[in-house]
Amino acid sequence: MAIDFTLAPEHEEIRKRVRAFIQGTVIPAMEGVKEGDRDEYLRTIFRLRSQAKEEGLWLPHMPKEWGGMGLGHVELAMVQSEAAKTRIGPWVLNCMAPDEGNMHTLLHWATDEQKERYLRPLLEGRQMSCFAMTEPEVAGSDPTLIRTTAVRDGDEWIINGHKWFISNARRANFAILIARTEQDVPEGSRGANTAFLVDLPQEGWNDVREVETMHGSTGHSEIVITDLRLPDSQILGGRGNGHRLGQYRLGPARLAHCMRWISQAETALDMMVDRALNRFSHGSLLAEKQGVQWMIADSAMELYQCKLMVLHAASKIDKGEDFRTEVSMAKHFVANSLNRIVDRAIQVHGALGYSTDTPLAGMFQHARWARFADGADEIHQMRIAERTIAAYQATGSTSTATGNLPL
Amino acid sequence: MAIDFTLAPEHEEIRKRVRAFIQGTVIPAMEGVKEGDRDEYLRTIFRLRSQAKEEGLWLPHMPKEWGGMGLGHVELAMVQSEAAKTRIGPWVLNCMAPDEGNMHTLLHWATDEQKERYLRPLLEGRQMSCFAMTEPEVAGSDPTLIRTTAVRDGDEWIINGHKWFISNARRANFAILIARTEQDVPEGSRGANTAFLVDLPQEGWNDVREVETMHGSTGHSEIVITDLRLPDSQILGGRGNGHRLGQYRLGPARLAHCMRWISQAETALDMMVDRALNRFSHGSLLAEKQGVQWMIADSAMELYQCKLMVLHAASKIDKGEDFRTEVSMAKHFVANSLNRIVDRAIQVHGALGYSTDTPLAGMFQHARWARFADGADEIHQMRIAERTIAAYQATGSTSTATGNLPL
Amino acid sequence: MAIDFTLAPEHEEIRKRVRAFIQGTVIPAMEGVKEGDRDEYLRTIFRLRSQAKEEGLWLPHMPKEWGGMGLGHVELAMVQSEAAKTRIGPWVLNCMAPDEGNMHTLLHWATDEQKERYLRPLLEGRQMSCFAMTEPEVAGSDPTLIRTTAVRDGDEWIINGHKWFISNARRANFAILIARTEQDVPEGSRGANTAFLVDLPQEGWNDVREVETMHGSTGHSEIVITDLRLPDSQILGGRGNGHRLGQYRLGPARLAHCMRWISQAETALDMMVDRALNRFSHGSLLAEKQGVQWMIADSAMELYQCKLMVLHAASKIDKGEDFRTEVSMAKHFVANSLNRIVDRAIQVHGALGYSTDTPLAGMFQHARWARFADGADEIHQMRIAERTIAAYQATGSTSTATGNLPL
Amino acid sequence: MAIDFTLAPEHEEIRKRVRAFIQGTVIPAMEGVKEGDRDEYLRTIFRLRSQAKEEGLWLPHMPKEWGGMGLGHVELAMVQSEAAKTRIGPWVLNCMAPDEGNMHTLLHWATDEQKERYLRPLLEGRQMSCFAMTEPEVAGSDPTLIRTTAVRDGDEWIINGHKWFISNARRANFAILIARTEQDVPEGSRGANTAFLVDLPQEGWNDVREVETMHGSTGHSEIVITDLRLPDSQILGGRGNGHRLGQYRLGPARLAHCMRWISQAETALDMMVDRALNRFSHGSLLAEKQGVQWMIADSAMELYQCKLMVLHAASKIDKGEDFRTEVSMAKHFVANSLNRIVDRAIQVHGALGYSTDTPLAGMFQHARWARFADGADEIHQMRIAERTIAAYQATGSTSTATGNLPL
Repeated sequence: MAIDFTLAPEHEEIRKRVRAFIQGTVIPAMEGVKEGDRDEYLRTIFRLRSQAKEEGLWLPHMPKEWGGMGLGHVELAMVQSEAAKTRIGPWVLNCMAPDEGNMHTLLHWATDEQKERYLRPLLEGRQMSCFAMTEPEVAGSDPTLIRTTAVRDGDEWIINGHKWFISNARRANFAILIARTEQDVPEGSRGANTAFLVDLPQEGWNDVREVETMHGSTGHSEIVITDLRLPDSQILGGRGNGHRLGQYRLGPARLAHCMRWISQAETALDMMVDRALNRFSHGSLLAEKQGVQWMIADSAMELYQCKLMVLHAASKIDKGEDFRTEVSMAKHFVANSLNRIVDRAIQVHGALGYSTDTPLAGMFQHARWARFADGADEIHQMRIAERTIAAYQATGSTSTATGNLPL
Repeated sequence: MAIDFTLAPEHEEIRKRVRAFIQGTVIPAMEGVKEGDRDEYLRTIFRLRSQAKEEGLWLPHMPKEWGGMGLGHVELAMVQSEAAKTRIGPWVLNCMAPDEGNMHTLLHWATDEQKERYLRPLLEGRQMSCFAMTEPEVAGSDPTLIRTTAVRDGDEWIINGHKWFISNARRANFAILIARTEQDVPEGSRGANTAFLVDLPQEGWNDVREVETMHGSTGHSEIVITDLRLPDSQILGGRGNGHRLGQYRLGPARLAHCMRWISQAETALDMMVDRALNRFSHGSLLAEKQGVQWMIADSAMELYQCKLMVLHAASKIDKGEDFRTEVSMAKHFVANSLNRIVDRAIQVHGALGYSTDTPLAGMFQHARWARFADGADEIHQMRIAERTIAAYQATGSTSTATGNLPL
Repeated sequence: MAIDFTLAPEHEEIRKRVRAFIQGTVIPAMEGVKEGDRDEYLRTIFRLRSQAKEEGLWLPHMPKEWGGMGLGHVELAMVQSEAAKTRIGPWVLNCMAPDEGNMHTLLHWATDEQKERYLRPLLEGRQMSCFAMTEPEVAGSDPTLIRTTAVRDGDEWIINGHKWFISNARRANFAILIARTEQDVPEGSRGANTAFLVDLPQEGWNDVREVETMHGSTGHSEIVITDLRLPDSQILGGRGNGHRLGQYRLGPARLAHCMRWISQAETALDMMVDRALNRFSHGSLLAEKQGVQWMIADSAMELYQCKLMVLHAASKIDKGEDFRTEVSMAKHFVANSLNRIVDRAIQVHGALGYSTDTPLAGMFQHARWARFADGADEIHQMRIAERTIAAYQATGSTSTATGNLPL
Repeated sequence: MAIDFTLAPEHEEIRKRVRAFIQGTVIPAMEGVKEGDRDEYLRTIFRLRSQAKEEGLWLPHMPKEWGGMGLGHVELAMVQSEAAKTRIGPWVLNCMAPDEGNMHTLLHWATDEQKERYLRPLLEGRQMSCFAMTEPEVAGSDPTLIRTTAVRDGDEWIINGHKWFISNARRANFAILIARTEQDVPEGSRGANTAFLVDLPQEGWNDVREVETMHGSTGHSEIVITDLRLPDSQILGGRGNGHRLGQYRLGPARLAHCMRWISQAETALDMMVDRALNRFSHGSLLAEKQGVQWMIADSAMELYQCKLMVLHAASKIDKGEDFRTEVSMAKHFVANSLNRIVDRAIQVHGALGYSTDTPLAGMFQHARWARFADGADEIHQMRIAERTIAAYQATGSTSTATGNLPL
C-alpha cells in the first residue's frame, strides 16, 4: 500500500488489447460501412460484438462468473476510455448506457429468478433494456416528487404515470420502472418509491414519441403509462427501495459516463492542438499566440484533473469506501470540462468547427447533455456542499470531503 | 504496482506524529508568546526547532545520511501540509522556503567542500540562506534577460547588478546568486548564466531596503551589487549552468509551496463552512442558501483537485520521471485556487472577513503573491501549452501531457 | 444636447407600430402556416412583405429617397430588436443579413448605374444577394491572406478561388465577391483586394454544396470559382478597395446582428424566469433559490449592458464619429452574453431545455455562430486592445477607448 | 428628447474646471507634503478646501440654495470621477463618504431645526459626521435583524447596542444611528427601526477601537452603546422610518462610490497599458502578446460598461424614476470590475505590482472592500433577481428590469 498512479502490468496488458481492438478492428470496420446503410451498420456492429466476445473483451464491468472481464472500476476506467474513442465502442464491448447500469442494478438487487430472466440475456447480448425514472412534470433530481403511481389491486399493481427521456426504450426488451407505491410515508421520505421490471412491449406502456433534442432524435422516448398491471414478482429490490436502487445504480453509471467523456475531451484537445499548429493568422501560427496557448493549457489542465478525479473515485468504489462525494465531483467537473474543451476546440477551428465537416459540432451538442445527465450540475453542487458541511460538523475539518487524501 | 491513493502505514505514522507535534506543541507554544515580543517569539521558535530535531521531525525533505527524514516527495507533501497549518511550522521543521530549495540545490550541485561549508550549517539549523535571481528591470521568468554580470578579472569574478524580492536576505549567512558570465552565447541560449555562492555580509553586496508589499515588509530585500569579487571556487554547479540549476531548484520548491498553500486553503474552507453554519440572513442560515452552497462546493472541488495534483506530481518526482508539466499545472492551479477559496471565505464572512479579526485578510494578501512566486501564472500556462503541443507533435496525442495516466 | 436615454416621441411611435405589426400580424400569420409546407411558408412571407411595404415598415435602414424609413442607427436598433422577436421578422421588413449589409455597401460604393441594376431590385424586394469573402484555407479575419485571385486578361478579369460559408448564395441574384487583384503591394498591405459584382448564376461560379452546421443546413454555400470572367465595369468601389469596403460594410452589419441577438437573449431570459416561477424542487420554487437567482440576476445585468452598448455604438454611428471600438465591444459582448443567457435558460429548464420542445435548443445552436460571425471573439479582442493601447499612446489616457464618455 | 451620451456645454465646462483644479492644484499641492507630516497634510487639505469653495467647486451634490453646485446625478458622476483621480479629491470638494450621503439624508428627512444644527455645519465644512447602522452580530443587509434597541423611558429613549465599521466615527461631530424602536411589528416588517441624531462625544457612546482591516486602520470604529439617552427631538425622519431612510440614503451614495471606483479602475487600466508597452519578455513586448491584449481588452470593455451603467442610473435618479435595479446593477458590476481590473494590472506588473512601489497594491486592498460596501454582492444579486422576476410577473416581460430602454 503506497501512493501509485500506474496500472498493474496485467491491466496495462488489457488496456493495450482494448486499444488494439478499437483502433485496429472497430474503427476500420465502421469506416467501411456505407453512409446511410442502416442494415450494414447494424450487421457490422453485431459482427464486432461477436468478435469482442471471442477475444474476451466483453462485459468489462461484470464479474467473471457472469461472463465478464472481472475488472475493478479503476481498470474499467481505462477500458471505457479506450472504447469511447469511437461512439459505438462501448456498445461493441457490451458496456454502454443504459444497459451497463441496469446490469449492475440487476446483479445487486434482482432475485435469482429475475437474474436468469433479465440479466442473463443482457449479458449475452441478446436483449437490451431501459431505465424509466425521469418525468416531465417534476424535477428528476428530487425523488420525493415522483408522480407515477403503482396502486395495489388484489394480487397486482396498477401503474399510471408519465415518463420521458427514456433512453433506448424503443429497442428495449424490458424496462426498470420507478413508481410511487407508498402513500403514507412521512414528508420528505426517500422510501416512497419501488422499482418494477416491465417486459416490453406491454399493454399500458405507450411510447408516444421520441423526444427531439439538440442533437437530433436519438432514442429518448416519452412514455405514457396507463393502467399497466404487474404482479408482485416484478418488483425489483423490494418495496420502498426504488430510490436507494436508483442511487446505487447511478454511482458507477455516472463514473462510466465520465470515462467516456474524458475520451471525447481528449479527442477535442488533440484536434485543437492540431489546428493551432496548422492555422496561420495575423503574422503567426495560432499555436504561437499567447491567448491560444492559454486555451490549450487550460484544456490540458482540466483534462488532467478529470483523469485524476475519475481514477480516484473509481479507486474508492473498488475499496468499498463511500464514493458519493468523489463521484459527484467527478460527474460535475468532467461534464463541464468536456463542454469547455469542446467549445475551445470549436473556437480554434473557426467556421470549420461550427460546420459538421469535423466531429466537433456533434460533440458540442452531445456535451451539453452531460450537464443534465444523471443529475444536473446544481444537484451535484448541492450534494457536494451538504457533504462538505456534514464533514465539518462531524470532524471539525472539511478534509474528509475533499477526497480524504493523505494531504 | 497498482493505482493507490493511500500512504504506506509507516508514512501514515509519521503524518500522525507531525500533526500531533504541530497541533499539540507548536501551536500552543506560539499562542503563549506575548504579542509584539520579538525576542520571546524567536526564543520559542528555536526551542521548538530543538525539540523537532530531537523527535526526528527535522529536515523531512533531506536524506537520512544528511540528518533528514529521508522522505519521498509524496510523503513530504503530507508533512509540509501538516506543518503549514501554522505559518512557522515549516520553519520549526527546517523545511521552509528559501532554505529548503537551497538545500536541494546544494545537495545536488555543490562540491563536497561546498557542502560542508554551506549545506551542513543549513541542515543543522545554524545558518540561513537566500536565493538571488530576480531583477527589477527584466522579466524574471526569462533567464536570457538577466543583466547582473560576472566578469573575469584575473583569478576573480567581478559582479555588478541589481536584484530584488530576495526573500530572507537580511537573515541569510550566504546567498546563491545568479549572474551572467557568458557573453558570446547564441541568441536565446540558456547557457549564459552561472550560480555563485556569496558569503554575507560581503563587500559589494548592498541591501538597500526591504521592499514593502501588499502584506507588509516581510523580508524581501532589494540588493545593489557593486564590484563584488569572488574566486572561481565560489561557483556552484559549473559555469553556464545557472539556468539549469535554477530550474532544478524550482521544481520541488514549487511543489513545496503548493503543499503549504493547500493547508491554507483548507483552513479557509473550514472557516467558510463554520461561518455559513452560524450566520443567519434573509430567512435562513447561509449554509442553507443555494448560492453559498455553490461557493462551498466549488471550493471543496478545487481543493480536492489541488490535493490530487500535488500527490501525482510528487509521485512523478519520486519515480524520477519528467515532472515539469505536472508541477507547472499544480503550481498554477493551487495558487489560483488558494486565491479563489480565500476570497470566497472572506465574502461569506462579510465585513468581518475584511477586518484583521480573522486570519483571512492576511491570507488574502499573502495568497496574491502565490500567482507570481516561482513563475507567474502566464509563464506556467505558456510552458503547459508548449509541452502539450510538443506531446502531440511527438506522439500524435496530447495524453502524455495530461499526466500520462492510464486513462 | 444632454445625456438622454429615451427615444424622441416620433421614434417611440414607430417602435410601437413595428411591435404591433410583428406581434399582431407577422407572428400569428406564421403560426398559421402548416408545418413543413414550404410553399405556404414562402407565400406567407411574401404576403407579409407586401403588407410591411404598404404600412411603411420597409427598409428601416435605408434613406427615404431610396424608399426606406430614413432612420438613424439608434432608431434602427429598436426596429431590428422588435422585428427579431420572430426569426423571419427582419426578412419581412427587408432588413435581414446579408442583404441589409449589401444595401449599405452598394449605397455607399456603387456607381449610379450599379445602383440601378443591383441596389434598386434589392430595395424593392425583387432580388436577393450574397457576400463572398470567407475562404476555407485562410483566416477570414486577416484580409492579407485572401487567395482568390482576379487576373487581368485583356479587357477582363479572370477569377479563380474558393469561398465558403456564403450565406444566401443559392437564393442570390448576385454576389459581392472579394478577390486579390494586386500582387505587388507591400507585405501586410490592406490594398491588395478588390470587390466585384457577380450576376448569378454565372459560368465559373460553382456552388458545390451547402455546408452543414451545428444548426443544420441553412444556406451557407461552398463555392468553387473557376475562370470566372468579369469586365471592369463589375468592379465595386474601385481597385484595391476591397478591404476598406468590407470593413465599411461590417460596422453597421455587426450592430444589426447585436440588435437581433438582444431580442433573442430577452426571449431566453423571459423563459428562464417563467420556468423558475413554475418549477418546484427540493423544497421551494427555483425562483426562490439563491443560485437560480444569481443566474437570473447575471443574465439581467448582461442584457442591460448589451442594450446600453448597442445604443451607444449606434449613437456614435449616427453622429459620424469613429465607432469601431464601440462596435467591436458590442459585437463581442452581445454575442457572448447571448450564449451565456441561452445556456442558463436551458439549464433552468433541465431536460426540457435540451429537447426541441422549446425554442431554446435551436437558439443555443444558432447562438454559437455569433461568436464567429463578422469577426471571431479573438479578432475583436485584439482590435479593442490595439485601440486601447493607441488611445493611451496618443493621449496619455485610455478614456477615449472606453466610449469617450463624460465620465 | 432623444438618445444622447454627451454633456450639455455648461456641464462640460464644469468638468473641465474640476479636472484643471484636481490635476493642476490639488495633486501638486499634496505631492508637496512631506511624507509622514500629518499636520502639514491636514493643513494642506483645509487650504485646498477653502480654495475649492472660493472657486465654486464645492458641494457638487447639493442644491444651490444650500451652497452647492446644483448638479444632477449625471453631472455629479463626472465631477466625482474627476475628483477621485486623487484619494482626497472628494474631501477637498466636500463630497466624500459618509458625509455626502448624510447630507442627502438630512436634506430630505431632517426638520428645519435639525437642518440648521446638523446639515449647515457639514455643508460649510465645519463639521464631519458618521452613519451607524452595521452590527457585528447580524447581517447588515437584513434590517429586520438589527439588535441595537431604543426603549422609551419617560420623555427619553434609552439606547443599547453594538455597531462596527462606522467610518469616520472618530472625526465625527455627530452620528446618524439606526436602532430598533418597535417591538410589535409583524415578522419581516421593515418598519421596526428608527434613525437618531447623536451628538458626539456623548455619554453611552463608546468608541472601543478602530477595526483593523486588510488596508490598515483607516477609521472604521467599533462602538459599544450603553444606556445612551436621547430626547424625541433627536429622531430623524420619524419613528419606524429607519430602514426607509437608510435605503433612500444608499441609492445615490452607492452611485457616488461607483463614480470614484471608475476613476480608480481607469488609473489601473492606464497603468496596465503603460507597463505592457514597456516590459519585454520571451521575444516581445507584453503589449504584443495575445493574452495580455485580452487582459487589456476585457478591462477596457468592463470599464466602458461601468461608465454606461453609471450614466444611465444617474439619469434615472435625475428623472425621478425608480432607479433601484439600475443602481444595484451598477454597484455590483463596478465593484467587481474594479477588483478584476486592478488584479489584472497587478499581474501585468509582476512583482512590482505586488510591492507598494506603485499605488496598485493599495488599490487592490481597498477594492476588496467595494464588494461589501453598501450591500454585499449577494444582496444586490438577490435584489436584481427579485425585481427581474417581479417585472416579468407584472408585464410578461423582463424588459423593464433591464434598464427599461428603447431596445
